Amino acid sequence: MPLPHNRRVTRSTSRPVLIAPSLLAADFTRLAEEVAAIESAGADWLHLDIMDGHFVPNISFGPAIVKALRPLTRMPFDVHLMIAPADPYLAAFAEAGADLISLHPEAGPHLHRSLQTIRGLGKKTGVVLNPGTPVESIAHVLDLVDLILVMTVNPGFGGQSFLESQLPKMATLRRMIDESGRDIRLQIDGGVTARTAPLCLEAGADVLVAGTAVFGAPDRAAAIRAIRGGQGA
Amino acid sequence: MPLPHNRRVTRSTSRPVLIAPSLLAADFTRLAEEVAAIESAGADWLHLDIMDGHFVPNISFGPAIVKALRPLTRMPFDVHLMIAPADPYLAAFAEAGADLISLHPEAGPHLHRSLQTIRGLGKKTGVVLNPGTPVESIAHVLDLVDLILVMTVNPGFGGQSFLESQLPKMATLRRMIDESGRDIRLQIDGGVTARTAPLCLEAGADVLVAGTAVFGAPDRAAAIRAIRGGQGA
Amino acid sequence: MPLPHNRRVTRSTSRPVLIAPSLLAADFTRLAEEVAAIESAGADWLHLDIMDGHFVPNISFGPAIVKALRPLTRMPFDVHLMIAPADPYLAAFAEAGADLISLHPEAGPHLHRSLQTIRGLGKKTGVVLNPGTPVESIAHVLDLVDLILVMTVNPGFGGQSFLESQLPKMATLRRMIDESGRDIRLQIDGGVTARTAPLCLEAGADVLVAGTAVFGAPDRAAAIRAIRGGQGA
Amino acid sequence: MPLPHNRRVTRSTSRPVLIAPSLLAADFTRLAEEVAAIESAGADWLHLDIMDGHFVPNISFGPAIVKALRPLTRMPFDVHLMIAPADPYLAAFAEAGADLISLHPEAGPHLHRSLQTIRGLGKKTGVVLNPGTPVESIAHVLDLVDLILVMTVNPGFGGQSFLESQLPKMATLRRMIDESGRDIRLQIDGGVTARTAPLCLEAGADVLVAGTAVFGAPDRAAAIRAIRGGQGA
Amino acid sequence: MPLPHNRRVTRSTSRPVLIAPSLLAADFTRLAEEVAAIESAGADWLHLDIMDGHFVPNISFGPAIVKALRPLTRMPFDVHLMIAPADPYLAAFAEAGADLISLHPEAGPHLHRSLQTIRGLGKKTGVVLNPGTPVESIAHVLDLVDLILVMTVNPGFGGQSFLESQLPKMATLRRMIDESGRDIRLQIDGGVTARTAPLCLEAGADVLVAGTAVFGAPDRAAAIRAIRGGQGA
Amino acid sequence: MPLPHNRRVTRSTSRPVLIAPSLLAADFTRLAEEVAAIESAGADWLHLDIMDGHFVPNISFGPAIVKALRPLTRMPFDVHLMIAPADPYLAAFAEAGADLISLHPEAGPHLHRSLQTIRGLGKKTGVVLNPGTPVESIAHVLDLVDLILVMTVNPGFGGQSFLESQLPKMATLRRMIDESGRDIRLQIDGGVTARTAPLCLEAGADVLVAGTAVFGAPDRAAAIRAIRGGQGA
Repeated sequence: MPLPHNRRVTRSTSRPVLIAPSLLAADFTRLAEEVAAIESAGADWLHLDIMDGHFVPNISFGPAIVKALRPLTRMPFDVHLMIAPADPYLAAFAEAGADLISLHPEAGPHLHRSLQTIRGLGKKTGVVLNPGTPVESIAHVLDLVDLILVMTVNPGFGGQSFLESQLPKMATLRRMIDESGRDIRLQIDGGVTARTAPLCLEAGADVLVAGTAVFGAPDRAAAIRAIRGGQGA
Repeated sequence: MPLPHNRRVTRSTSRPVLIAPSLLAADFTRLAEEVAAIESAGADWLHLDIMDGHFVPNISFGPAIVKALRPLTRMPFDVHLMIAPADPYLAAFAEAGADLISLHPEAGPHLHRSLQTIRGLGKKTGVVLNPGTPVESIAHVLDLVDLILVMTVNPGFGGQSFLESQLPKMATLRRMIDESGRDIRLQIDGGVTARTAPLCLEAGADVLVAGTAVFGAPDRAAAIRAIRGGQGA
Repeated sequence: MPLPHNRRVTRSTSRPVLIAPSLLAADFTRLAEEVAAIESAGADWLHLDIMDGHFVPNISFGPAIVKALRPLTRMPFDVHLMIAPADPYLAAFAEAGADLISLHPEAGPHLHRSLQTIRGLGKKTGVVLNPGTPVESIAHVLDLVDLILVMTVNPGFGGQSFLESQLPKMATLRRMIDESGRDIRLQIDGGVTARTAPLCLEAGADVLVAGTAVFGAPDRAAAIRAIRGGQGA
Repeated sequence: MPLPHNRRVTRSTSRPVLIAPSLLAADFTRLAEEVAAIESAGADWLHLDIMDGHFVPNISFGPAIVKALRPLTRMPFDVHLMIAPADPYLAAFAEAGADLISLHPEAGPHLHRSLQTIRGLGKKTGVVLNPGTPVESIAHVLDLVDLILVMTVNPGFGGQSFLESQLPKMATLRRMIDESGRDIRLQIDGGVTARTAPLCLEAGADVLVAGTAVFGAPDRAAAIRAIRGGQGA
Repeated sequence: MPLPHNRRVTRSTSRPVLIAPSLLAADFTRLAEEVAAIESAGADWLHLDIMDGHFVPNISFGPAIVKALRPLTRMPFDVHLMIAPADPYLAAFAEAGADLISLHPEAGPHLHRSLQTIRGLGKKTGVVLNPGTPVESIAHVLDLVDLILVMTVNPGFGGQSFLESQLPKMATLRRMIDESGRDIRLQIDGGVTARTAPLCLEAGADVLVAGTAVFGAPDRAAAIRAIRGGQGA
Repeated sequence: MPLPHNRRVTRSTSRPVLIAPSLLAADFTRLAEEVAAIESAGADWLHLDIMDGHFVPNISFGPAIVKALRPLTRMPFDVHLMIAPADPYLAAFAEAGADLISLHPEAGPHLHRSLQTIRGLGKKTGVVLNPGTPVESIAHVLDLVDLILVMTVNPGFGGQSFLESQLPKMATLRRMIDESGRDIRLQIDGGVTARTAPLCLEAGADVLVAGTAVFGAPDRAAAIRAIRGGQGA
């Protein structure tokens, strides 16, 4: 799918685009440097992928690493829980320094309660839709949600390719958000690059998670600008 | 339990004592430096505590961090899996660079198969006894075991106090090992300090895991020497 | 949300409103008296909340208590199963004296089979929607359903506040029921009081569960009349 | 529901109707003969029902039986996994000779990934809707699906009666398929006989699974013709 | 097994025998009266059987009923948790008024931690051995245990017959207790009557749970005396 | 481990040796013939390996195949359940024609109850020890057991090599059986051939399961005689 050069992205929302690099693609042996580097490169949020080896087929890291990073940066911490059940760990991630905690409807039968709990901990909330998950699954919790995350890969591993099949879902969610009149961010995670970012922005996204596209770039500031601005290669 | 100064430890085995600092107590934001520091301070192995939030009530870290550390040191990687089931992740930790993989009998009904699998991956094997776990639970797998780990705290968190109730279990296991005539290491993990290390060594241990007692010490080489030599404060 | 005095409730169904006090709010040390008291106070059904400590984070009571109460009253027993899986216990609750058994779509992958089983036991059936559960999840079982229960709190504990976010869901379900032409009751549970009951009735409900609002009232007959009639304090 | 004799079935698709007898109704002591018999009787596919005793309350058979049958027939093997999780067994069934592997959305939180995996194994994919499962649950995976299976009984046992409540769901799915412009088969399983087959075909189905209606018939070729042609008894 | 009249029981411990009637056999519709009745009949403890429908195939009752009964009696509350995992509910039962909380080694992989938690809540601890559970399973937690409960029926239901196969296990445990020099009670539950009680006492028990033998007796004080004194019918 | 020709096996029990070929190694497409063949070749029992894909990493077959085979032979059916939990399927296998049902202590926390249930269904009972499972785990159920099965491979697949590490366990169990004075068979399963059979018989076994060694032999009667008689190649 070749994109014309200098293509102007027509966005369906006027909110500024936020870039949230995912720590999963950082060099784990030098996290302090890595976090400082992307902050000074212009990253808006730090995206933290928590995997328990049960909800997804990989184990990433837990609250201790979140906590260790917290004093090193002013970026908001956007914690994506790929764990089930999530309830027993909500307080631990709140205490570790999460600013926003997002989870999957499949993580338990009481999504609404989990969101209440996160709000009760004073944190912002997110709900995450796997590629196969229907939008109906979050229709009744919009009043408790600050962010909706559309997965454009199946969660568990970095480095996968963007699923274009999720673009219509983004558009549907953008409409749901606008009709609700609520202040809800629409975030995309999975295979986001300077090439795929404009597709997301046109479909209504306003927060983009990027892993290797940022941490793997020789010039991270340029990479962030490219993703944010839709000025793809 | 005051210990006399300069007390001579009477050990029941003549094998050299190995010290395996646990990464759990390191500064996660500068792991490369931390690992280099303890290696040059005299650590023998690097102990890696893997927790999945299901077998134990905490999530620590997974194969990606093990893999990232592997090129940075020549210390053997001693990976303690606090996950259940363990079988789906054995290959991932072997590929990430583990030299020894240890697991709990409670992790699944086929302990013997898991040990066969680890050996089949070309790695050394360990079995771990929780404080409440009886020694009988490993009696029939000694021919597949390179290391027995006695937990002297309940696994899940660093910084707990040494359980002296586990000393008789160590002595029993030392006897079982000696009677088997096999080359099996006896490792202790939990609250090991210069004060408690001699108790373990007298009871027959020959590998000591230490977390905060090493990483939290102002002089890590001195801390390792103190634990190894039984010259406690 | 102040409600005008003497407000007339415009209901969307002409079926009589039934009040089903929940035993969860009764004095468990004198259940015989409590049940007699609410029956003579005008309660229509007895609502029995069964919690297993797994599907919801609380354990309430099981079949033996249902059975012990059965001979003491002529009120129909409306048993709400907050257990998963539910299938192994359907026969036990039917034998204990349940007249209607309701369960959650999340309790197992075979909602349709569970409803067939309850019908096969000669009992009426209900399906329950958690606050976050979409109405689509029950769209294909309406031919097997005698009651739909909309939770207006997250299940597990008494004494929580009514979730107004569930009012549109009630209206949607009322429309689904009317369009189906089926004889299906629409029940509400959670924070129902004389103040919130009219909102439910206007949205199409015709069975109201009330716990503390009935059992905790000095005059239970007055409390039931107030909830039923929409004549709130 | 009496059907007039010689009724002409008005089908909503012009694709040929395929008949897939289910091995579950065969004589398990003489499978080689049974499979040969239905192949020469005109069966198009062999439908293989895999049950694990966890996702459904019955255990049927596994990969070894699929593999043993593979050399005996040229019929495509249509493997319906009633197991959860399905992911650990996808490769085993692919290697055993499955041509198409279908699974349930309820089998795991990553339906989309499972379908990717099956495609990656070089096999065709199917998704299965239990009687109570809403069509929304598969709306976002149509680009990865070769077949949709509508269960007209609850899975687990042969010999149950056809659920007419599922006919509207078939029609909805037929519309979804046609609107997608994709080449997706619509399969029906459960109580399919010469009497109920025309209802399915009119609702848009083009693959019919039949168990006892084929294997239990004195003349299996006639039975297959009757089901395929809508010329019921 | 006929027992001679007036037989003198030779007990292996001189501690007074305590009788702990199990609430499971009480009339659940009048618990206040039932508890008062057995207290004045001479019962020492109130035994509370908590079942979650998962660890055992029955649901009994939870913390709310324990809490409701607490103000009505001075008898210590001896809470037997037949739930798994037990850890999430320990605090709830402690707060509800339990004086002793006992649980099964099979309830989770961290028996030692659960006992530490109960002690940390300021309560006494118990461990329970199912009929098939070996004594080795508790050998390493004796320093944390105030009571060992030997089940003489399989847990889940009242009214079963006493398993004489458990008598040698009692004797073994009595020896283990005596050798440990610790103050640990040995409790028996299941089919305890005036006929079977002496067998238990001779084998070393000093706390007897009795359900129907007490609550079902016309004269409960006589029943308690008969069980305590070994003066059986 | 070369064995001398014509070696006389010194058995520790005088009971006749029974050979139980495992259906797992038969040709699944012609089971009627296969069963008839081994019966006329002198097999004593038919061993049926039931795997659910959860307790062991394979799915074999379930009650329907057992039932189909029942009328074809007079050999007793020895059903080895590698499923967990086992309780929900005990009745199904009894009704399908099992004469003996054996299960693993790890299959559930109530081994004793499962054995009671099997006896209550009028069938003989067995308990199975995985290679890593200690003998203590069955010490308290011997009064309910007709057979003890020692696994000499890890269960799940045919064709594995005999684990000699299990020979001491057999000897220990033979002693336990003899000391109990009970009529309990000692069965071995896994890698049993004419070479390994004598080792088992010397260690006290009296029932040998053999899969490929019987079904894969050109002369099955000779193979059975060789295994039974200890006249190995």
